[in-house]
Amino acid sequence: MRQTLGVRKIHVIGIGAGDPDQLTLQAVKSLRSTDVFFILDKGEVKSDLVRLRRDILDTHIPDRAYRLVEARDPDRDRSAGGTAYSPAVGDWRSARAAIYERLIAEELGEDESGAFLVWGDPALYDSTIGILEEILERGSVAFTYDVVPGVSSVSALVARHRTGLNRVARPVQITTGRRLAEGFPDGVDDVVVMLDAHQTFRQYADQDIDIYWGAYIGTPDEILASGPLAETAPRIERLRAEARERKGWIMDTYLLRRNPRD
Amino acid sequence: MRQTLGVRKIHVIGIGAGDPDQLTLQAVKSLRSTDVFFILDKGEVKSDLVRLRRDILDTHIPDRAYRLVEARDPDRDRSAGGTAYSPAVGDWRSARAAIYERLIAEELGEDESGAFLVWGDPALYDSTIGILEEILERGSVAFTYDVVPGVSSVSALVARHRTGLNRVARPVQITTGRRLAEGFPDGVDDVVVMLDAHQTFRQYADQDIDIYWGAYIGTPDEILASGPLAETAPRIERLRAEARERKGWIMDTYLLRRNPRD
Ligand SMILES: C[S@@+](CC[C@H](N)C(=O)[O-])C[C@H]1O[C@@H](n2cnc3c(N)ncnc32)[C@H](O)[C@@H]1O
Ligand SMILES: C[S@@+](CC[C@H](N)C(=O)[O-])C[C@H]1O[C@@H](n2cnc3c(N)ncnc32)[C@H](O)[C@@H]1O
Repeated sequence: MRQTLGVRKIHVIGIGAGDPDQLTLQAVKSLRSTDVFFILDKGEVKSDLVRLRRDILDTHIPDRAYRLVEARDPDRDRSAGGTAYSPAVGDWRSARAAIYERLIAEELGEDESGAFLVWGDPALYDSTIGILEEILERGSVAFTYDVVPGVSSVSALVARHRTGLNRVARPVQITTGRRLAEGFPDGVDDVVVMLDAHQTFRQYADQDIDIYWGAYIGTPDEILASGPLAETAPRIERLRAEARERKGWIMDTYLLRRNPRD
Repeated sequence: MRQTLGVRKIHVIGIGAGDPDQLTLQAVKSLRSTDVFFILDKGEVKSDLVRLRRDILDTHIPDRAYRLVEARDPDRDRSAGGTAYSPAVGDWRSARAAIYERLIAEELGEDESGAFLVWGDPALYDSTIGILEEILERGSVAFTYDVVPGVSSVSALVARHRTGLNRVARPVQITTGRRLAEGFPDGVDDVVVMLDAHQTFRQYADQDIDIYWGAYIGTPDEILASGPLAETAPRIERLRAEARERKGWIMDTYLLRRNPRD
């Protein structure tokens, strides 16, 4: 394995949040110009998501002429228990950076290009860009990289509900279940919640809020529910429990839209 | 022109924020299943954007086998002066609804499908969905519609800057220049600003904030600038004034990232 200062090129490619047709033409072009794909396996519960990435590659790369490198993700706790972003997040990130660094150094020839296929849009609650920056700072392997934006689960959610993210001239906030548990955000009435393992929306069921909820959006398992929070929350709880039971894992996102008090 | 209660179908198609390759495969499929495209002309300054829509159609629809219906947008003030969302926004919306209603009723046969090509993601600061809902409420023309999500200028902005929208486990807010003028939003340190005709970021140049700015993102005219706000704001002012002078109009978006005080 040569370690010259080559110009390895990395693409961070947003692949949409479930529907393979949500890939952009730019993403398809990037896939086709990639030599090696890195796939991090997050354990059995997420194997459906790994399969979707393979399907995307098989669909868009002629003759399946690509190399796939799979590695085990250090992120075991998160996929098992849903306790996203524990205080150990820094450690986990460094562990992941070490793995990525090794993959890039060992699996990618100096004139080759590699890609990470990132769920949804790489800009939302995804660590790939931060990890690549960390590797570049360490300085032991050189590469350039670009980011191909994707359709996020947030955009997919509201499209399926045929509503907007914001109301006219109003702001919207995107946050996590953990943050929402600390209180309804100040200064906004439209709030999108991701990474919520605890159905934190229930905490606000006594307020005049509409919810637009979706699980497995864009996949054949997609489930949608919407309506006034008080009456919709119990329905979502039921749908969510059933789906989680059936599939063994769930990914869901929702928009809370608080109605003006008057 | 028959006026039977048919099932006209409308697609609201997000086309990305400037780069024609940001169209998703789903958007391309929707384009190809559309009989009539409605294009609202917002006056000369935006004719570049109308041209981009035509180019997209010519690229993706074989033999240019499509019908295009152009109408004059009632939105004259906004495109001219940049005074987005005046108190007359309700009136303007109803005026637009009347135009859309007429287009759908008169230009679309009852078994046909029509489409509106929406800039970026239809979920962000776009009125198309709201207007279609208003027409359905009026009840004089029947149709069904779906929404095809797109890559927003927000996703495109941060992809070009190779950064995320949010920091780890933190929220992000998307807002307007007008709102930002009223104060830095509460409870968030990452704020994306759209629809800002007044470079409101200058108001915060005394704070420890990084800015990631982009104009005409994804187009051949794209301009990017980033760095600490205090030193980057004057540079952006200059770039923005030059570009506006040269092209006659500008569209720009930026992320403000406030650094923790300690
Ligand atoms: C680590 S974040 C990654 C988000 C991703 N980068 C995006 O743009 O959608 C994972 C969270 O995204 C949301 N999510 C991703 N895909 C989803 C889908 N298909 N349906 C519902 N929620 C989804 C869930 O809230 C999940 O907890
Ligand atoms: C009426 S909003 C529509 C936003 C659009 N739906 C989206 O998803 O990007 C128009 C604003 O979007 C932003 N914008 C749209 N396209 C842009 C581009 N290519 N470059 C920079 N800003 C853009 C600007 O802030 C502009 O004022």
